[in-house]
Amino acid sequence: MKGYAMLGIGRTGWIEKDRPVCGPLDAIVHPIAVSPCTSDVHTVWEGAIGDRHDMILGHEAVGEVVEVGAMVRDFQVGDKVIVPAITPDWGALASQAGYSMHSGGMLAGWKFSNFKDGVFAEYFHVNEADANLAHLPEGVNPVDAVMLSDMVPTGFHGVELADVQFGDDVCVIGIGPVGLMSVAAAALRGAAKLFAVGSRKVCADAALAYGATEILNYRNGDIAQQVLDKTGGRGVDRVIIAGGNAEETFGQAIRMLKPGGRIGNVNYLGSGDNVLIPRAEWGCGMGHKTIAGGLMPGGRLRMEKLVALLENGRLDTSRLITHRFNGFEHMEEALMLMKDKPRDLIKPVVIL
Amino acid sequence: MKGYAMLGIGRTGWIEKDRPVCGPLDAIVHPIAVSPCTSDVHTVWEGAIGDRHDMILGHEAVGEVVEVGAMVRDFQVGDKVIVPAITPDWGALASQAGYSMHSGGMLAGWKFSNFKDGVFAEYFHVNEADANLAHLPEGVNPVDAVMLSDMVPTGFHGVELADVQFGDDVCVIGIGPVGLMSVAAAALRGAAKLFAVGSRKVCADAALAYGATEILNYRNGDIAQQVLDKTGGRGVDRVIIAGGNAEETFGQAIRMLKPGGRIGNVNYLGSGDNVLIPRAEWGCGMGHKTIAGGLMPGGRLRMEKLVALLENGRLDTSRLITHRFNGFEHMEEALMLMKDKPRDLIKPVVIL
Amino acid sequence: MKGYAMLGIGRTGWIEKDRPVCGPLDAIVHPIAVSPCTSDVHTVWEGAIGDRHDMILGHEAVGEVVEVGAMVRDFQVGDKVIVPAITPDWGALASQAGYSMHSGGMLAGWKFSNFKDGVFAEYFHVNEADANLAHLPEGVNPVDAVMLSDMVPTGFHGVELADVQFGDDVCVIGIGPVGLMSVAAAALRGAAKLFAVGSRKVCADAALAYGATEILNYRNGDIAQQVLDKTGGRGVDRVIIAGGNAEETFGQAIRMLKPGGRIGNVNYLGSGDNVLIPRAEWGCGMGHKTIAGGLMPGGRLRMEKLVALLENGRLDTSRLITHRFNGFEHMEEALMLMKDKPRDLIKPVVIL
Amino acid sequence: MKGYAMLGIGRTGWIEKDRPVCGPLDAIVHPIAVSPCTSDVHTVWEGAIGDRHDMILGHEAVGEVVEVGAMVRDFQVGDKVIVPAITPDWGALASQAGYSMHSGGMLAGWKFSNFKDGVFAEYFHVNEADANLAHLPEGVNPVDAVMLSDMVPTGFHGVELADVQFGDDVCVIGIGPVGLMSVAAAALRGAAKLFAVGSRKVCADAALAYGATEILNYRNGDIAQQVLDKTGGRGVDRVIIAGGNAEETFGQAIRMLKPGGRIGNVNYLGSGDNVLIPRAEWGCGMGHKTIAGGLMPGGRLRMEKLVALLENGRLDTSRLITHRFNGFEHMEEALMLMKDKPRDLIKPVVIL
Repeated sequence: MKGYAMLGIGRTGWIEKDRPVCGPLDAIVHPIAVSPCTSDVHTVWEGAIGDRHDMILGHEAVGEVVEVGAMVRDFQVGDKVIVPAITPDWGALASQAGYSMHSGGMLAGWKFSNFKDGVFAEYFHVNEADANLAHLPEGVNPVDAVMLSDMVPTGFHGVELADVQFGDDVCVIGIGPVGLMSVAAAALRGAAKLFAVGSRKVCADAALAYGATEILNYRNGDIAQQVLDKTGGRGVDRVIIAGGNAEETFGQAIRMLKPGGRIGNVNYLGSGDNVLIPRAEWGCGMGHKTIAGGLMPGGRLRMEKLVALLENGRLDTSRLITHRFNGFEHMEEALMLMKDKPRDLIKPVVIL
Repeated sequence: MKGYAMLGIGRTGWIEKDRPVCGPLDAIVHPIAVSPCTSDVHTVWEGAIGDRHDMILGHEAVGEVVEVGAMVRDFQVGDKVIVPAITPDWGALASQAGYSMHSGGMLAGWKFSNFKDGVFAEYFHVNEADANLAHLPEGVNPVDAVMLSDMVPTGFHGVELADVQFGDDVCVIGIGPVGLMSVAAAALRGAAKLFAVGSRKVCADAALAYGATEILNYRNGDIAQQVLDKTGGRGVDRVIIAGGNAEETFGQAIRMLKPGGRIGNVNYLGSGDNVLIPRAEWGCGMGHKTIAGGLMPGGRLRMEKLVALLENGRLDTSRLITHRFNGFEHMEEALMLMKDKPRDLIKPVVIL
Repeated sequence: MKGYAMLGIGRTGWIEKDRPVCGPLDAIVHPIAVSPCTSDVHTVWEGAIGDRHDMILGHEAVGEVVEVGAMVRDFQVGDKVIVPAITPDWGALASQAGYSMHSGGMLAGWKFSNFKDGVFAEYFHVNEADANLAHLPEGVNPVDAVMLSDMVPTGFHGVELADVQFGDDVCVIGIGPVGLMSVAAAALRGAAKLFAVGSRKVCADAALAYGATEILNYRNGDIAQQVLDKTGGRGVDRVIIAGGNAEETFGQAIRMLKPGGRIGNVNYLGSGDNVLIPRAEWGCGMGHKTIAGGLMPGGRLRMEKLVALLENGRLDTSRLITHRFNGFEHMEEALMLMKDKPRDLIKPVVIL
Repeated sequence: MKGYAMLGIGRTGWIEKDRPVCGPLDAIVHPIAVSPCTSDVHTVWEGAIGDRHDMILGHEAVGEVVEVGAMVRDFQVGDKVIVPAITPDWGALASQAGYSMHSGGMLAGWKFSNFKDGVFAEYFHVNEADANLAHLPEGVNPVDAVMLSDMVPTGFHGVELADVQFGDDVCVIGIGPVGLMSVAAAALRGAAKLFAVGSRKVCADAALAYGATEILNYRNGDIAQQVLDKTGGRGVDRVIIAGGNAEETFGQAIRMLKPGGRIGNVNYLGSGDNVLIPRAEWGCGMGHKTIAGGLMPGGRLRMEKLVALLENGRLDTSRLITHRFNGFEHMEEALMLMKDKPRDLIKPVVIL
C-alpha cells in the first residue's frame, strides 16, 4: 500500500509498505478524510520525537473499516468511524488510574506516527477497536468530524485542565486550531470575559466567532500587562496555553492569573531545557496558581461525547477548515501548508 | 415605611413598619425592581416556613443604597446594586467549610422574608454589605438583573450539583423560571442532548430558545421511559430537578440516569415525609447514581460572576420576564400571578 | 472439576463441572485461600440476583495461575495472585468514564457467581488477566490478602464516597467486616471523632482497634439522636453506611449529618421498594447533604494499591479473620457461618 | 507593652509599643505559648518581605483573650485560644472563592508580623475573632497546640495539594517541622510507601515515627534517581515539597513523579528568579504532572478540625518540640535556634 511518510529528519515522501496486520481486538481502516497537524511538522522538521525512517505520518482521520479482528463486537466492515489521535491500551495501569493517554508510559497513548505508522496511508491499524473507534453519526460531515481526532479534544482538554467555571474570566494564549477550540470550549463552559491572544486575522475572526470577547496582540505590548490593564489589575481566573514557548509563555500566564487560578497547558513544548515559572508572581510557591498540562484524552467515549456536540448544534468545526483538497495526492501540499502557515490558514483537510 | 407582607398563613397585605436599622457592616437599600417568587407563595399559602405575622415578603431585588454602616468600604449611598436572595454570614463555620448558604444553620443563609423582613418594602436591610451586594454594571438593565437574585443562581446551581461535562446528555425536569435557567446553564456548560420536561407552551418555547434539544411532556407517558426510549435505553448522564415532588420525581430521575450519573436538585420540596429513591434502579445502593441537592450560593462574588455572563452576552434573562409592572402598587397583582400561574407566565417584575 | 455451588434458591452443594476455558486475554486460577461473603448468602437464600442453577459460588480469593491466554503478558503459570471480586471489561464505555464496576451495565463488573461461576472451585476463570489480577507480594500472607478481594476495597470505597477530610467527624453504620474496613479507612484518611454503630462485642472490639473512638449501640436509642447528643447537636461531617436497610438507615444518616456532609453507602440493599430520605431533615432538598453509593472499584491497580497498605504496615486485615479452615471440604461449614453469623464471627477463610 | 521585634533587616530586639486597639469584631490576646518560625528568620535576616522597622515578630501562638469587640459573640475574656498564622478577612471575594488565605491580595491573609505586629508581644490583635480564633479544648496541652498555628496546617496542606489517595506512593522533600507534618499527614491520608528526604538524625527519626517508610539523603546521590531506583523505575504518585529551592527541587520532584501525579508545594521560595520545571520530564507540557502550591488555610474551622486530631489521638505534635523555654525573656534565644538550626533542633517553644 501507499503512504506518505517521514523518510528521516527533514525529509518526507511517498513510500510503499505492507498493509498492517489486524490482531484479534483490532481494526484496519481506510481513510475518508485526514488532516495534517503541527505535530507532524514537529516530528519531521524538528525531530521532536527523534529520528524515524519511513514512518507513515498523520494521526487525524475519519475512515471506513475494512477489516476487524475476531474479538471485535461493535464495528464491522463498512462502518464509517472517527479515529482519535490517542488510542490507549485500556487495561493498562495508567488507564485504570484515569490517565489512559499515558498507558504504556508517559504520552504513550499516542501511537500513530509515533510508535507505529500513521493515518496518511491507504490503510492504517487501530488497536482495541471497540474501545478506540467511534461511529460517525448520520448527518455529520466527515470533513468536520476530522477535527474531532485531535483539534477539538486537545483544545477542550485545555479548558478542562483549567477548570473553567460559570462567570470566570479566561485568557486563551494561542489561537491556532487547537487554541480556537479552547476558545470555543471556554465559551461553552460558561466563561464571561474571554481574551484570545493571537495576531493573524483569520484566526482572530474565528476566535471572535467562537466566543472570544477580545483579541490581544503581543505586538501591542506584554500580554500579561494587557490583561491586567483590561481587568482593573485583577487578572483572570483561568489561562489556557495553546501556543508560545517554555521560557516566556508560562511567565505571562502566571502574571495574568489570580491567586486560586489555574493554567491548563495543551501546547506541546518542543524546545528549551526548562519551563520557567516566575517565583515572585507565583506567590513564592504559595499563591495557589495551579499549573496543569496534559495530552488529550482519546478513545471511543471521548469521540462520542464530542461528536454529540456537533450533532446537537453546540459546536461548528467547519470554520476551522480553511483549505480542502480532494485526492490523496494532495497530501504533501496539505502538510506543507501546516509547515509554512500562510496567513489565511487555520487547518487543511484532505478528502480521499 | 410601607411594605407588602404576609399577615398570617394565607393572608397578605400592605403594612407600615419602621425603616430597618443599619449596623456597622450593613446597608439599607431602596428597591428599583423586585420580583415575587414561588417561594413567597409557598411561604404565604402553604406555610412552608411556619406561621409568620406581618413579615414583609420578597427576596429578589435590584436597588439603590440609601445608607451604609461605618465599616462598609466598597459601597456608598446612591450605588445601584444587585441583591442576592441568600446573604450569608461569611465568617461562620459553615461558610469557612464552603457552604455559606448554611451559615447559622441549614438553609439559614436565606434571611429575607424568612428570618427578617424581605425586599417588598420601601427600604430593606442587607447584612455584611461589602460581602453580599454587587454593583449593577453600567449597561445592564435592572429588570434583567433582578433575575440574578434567585432564578439564575438557583438554576445554575442545579447544573453545578449535577456536574455537567462536555458532551453529556442531560435532562432538566421542570421548566419554570428556575428550570429554564438550568436549561440555559446546561447548554452553557457543554451538554449535548438536552431534554426539558414541561407542558406549558410559553415555557417550552423558552426552553428551546435557551438550548433544550427536545421538550418532553409527562402527558405523553412516564418521562423516564420517554428518555430511555430516546436514548436507545442508555439514559442520560445528568438530571437537574427543578420541579415535581418528593414522591415521584426522584424515582423518575434515578430511572433515566446512567450508572455514574448525578442528580442535582434545586427544587424546594414542600411536602411529603420522605423523598423516595427506588432501590433496585438505584443499583441496590451501589449504582453510583449520586444524589445532590442544595440551596443556591449567594453573596457578592456569585452575583459578580453571574452578571458578567449578562455583560458578555452569554445569557439573556429578559426572555424570562413575561410580565412587567410599573409602580410598587402592583406588588399584589404580581404576587397573585405567581400564585395563579396563568399559562403565559414565566416571571413578573415590578419596577418601582 | 469440583465446585461448591448454588443449586437453586435456598440450596447449595458440591457439583462437578468442566474446567473453564481460557480466552486469549484470560487466566485460569486455582484457589489458595477463599472466603465466603454475605453476598453469597443473599444470592442463595434470598435470591438477591434471581434464581440460578448449579452456579459455583464465591468471589473472594487468592490463587495460583494455572493457565494464561496467548495475549497475556504480565502473568504466568505458577504466579500467586490476588483476585478482585470485581473484574471489569476495561475497554467498555463505562470504564472509560471512570466507572469500570458498571462496565457492561449497572453492577455488571461483578461477574463471579453472578454472570459466571465463582471462585469456590478447583479452577476459576479471570477475564483480562493483565488488567484484573495482581501479584501477591512476597511476605504478604495469602490469608490476609483474601480480604483484599472485597472487604477492604468495599469498606474503603465507602470512605472515598463520603470523601472524608482531615479532622472530620465520621460515623460508620454497621461494623461487619466491610464496616470495619470503613472504620479503618476513615481513621487512615484523617477522621477525628469516629463513631461506629454495632452491637456484637467481637466487632466492637475490632472497631476500636481499627480506630473508632466510640461504639454506639442502637439498643441505647435512636443512633442519630445519640450522635447529635455526643456532638453538641452539630452532627457529623460524613456517614458511611455499611449495614442496615433501605427504609431506616438513610434516615438516620441524614439526621446525623451536617449540611455540606456526604453519605457513602456500600451496603447492598436487598429489600424494600424505596430508599427513604427524610424530606425535612434533607433540607427540603436543599441541605447539601449528598448521597452517594457505589460498588467497589476492582481490577489490578486497586488490588496493587491496597496490598501496598498491607506491605507498608498501614493496615492489618488479620484481625478480621476469626475462623480459619484448612481444606476445601470445609467450604460449606464456612459458608454456613456467614449465614448464621455466630456472635464471635467476623470473617472465615478456607485455605486449600 | 513589650515586644520582640525586627528592628530592621538583620536586626532584632525588644521594643516598647502601645497595646493594640480592639475593633468591634476583634480580640486582643495575651500569649501563653509561642514559637518562632523559619519565616521569622527569612523576614529578619533575608528581608523576604522587604524592610520593616520595629515590627513585632511571630505568628505562632496559643493565648488567652484579654479583650473582645462589641460584635464578638463566641469568645470572652479569659478564654484560652489557638491562633492561626493566617487570619483571613472572611467576607473578601477571595474568601468567597475558597481562597481565604489570599483575601486582600495574594498571601495577604498572612497578617501577623507582615502587615501588623506579630504575637511575640505581651498583647496582640486578632481580626474577626469569631472567625479566626478557636477554643483550646480541655486536655490539650497549649505547648502541643502551638504547632497548630502553622506547622500542622502548612504540612497538612501539602498533602491536600498533592491529593494523596489510598495506597499512593509518596515522597516528602524536606523534613523540618513542616515537612514532618507532611509526613504525618501523608501517612494519615493513606499513603503506602512514604519516602522522606532529609539528613539530620533528629528529623529522620521523627519522620520514621510519623510514618515514613524510608529516609533518603541527598548525600547519597540525586534523590529523584534514588526514588526511581527504589520503585522499579515507576516513581511516586505524589510529591510534597517542604524544603529545597526554586532551581533544583521542582526538577527532582518532576523527575520522580508518575504521569498523572501531583506536586504539592508548601515551601516558601525565598530566592531565584524562576522556578525551573524540566521540560522533557514534564512530558513536554503534556504529562499530567500537576504543580500546585499554596499558603495554608487559616481561620477557626481549620484550627478546630486540626485540634480534633490531637484530641482524638490521631496526631502527636509533642515530638516536634525539641526545645522548651520558660519565660518570655528567652524569646531571642529561641529565635536564634531557628536561625542557627543546631543538629538536635526541630522546633522550640517559649512558654510565658
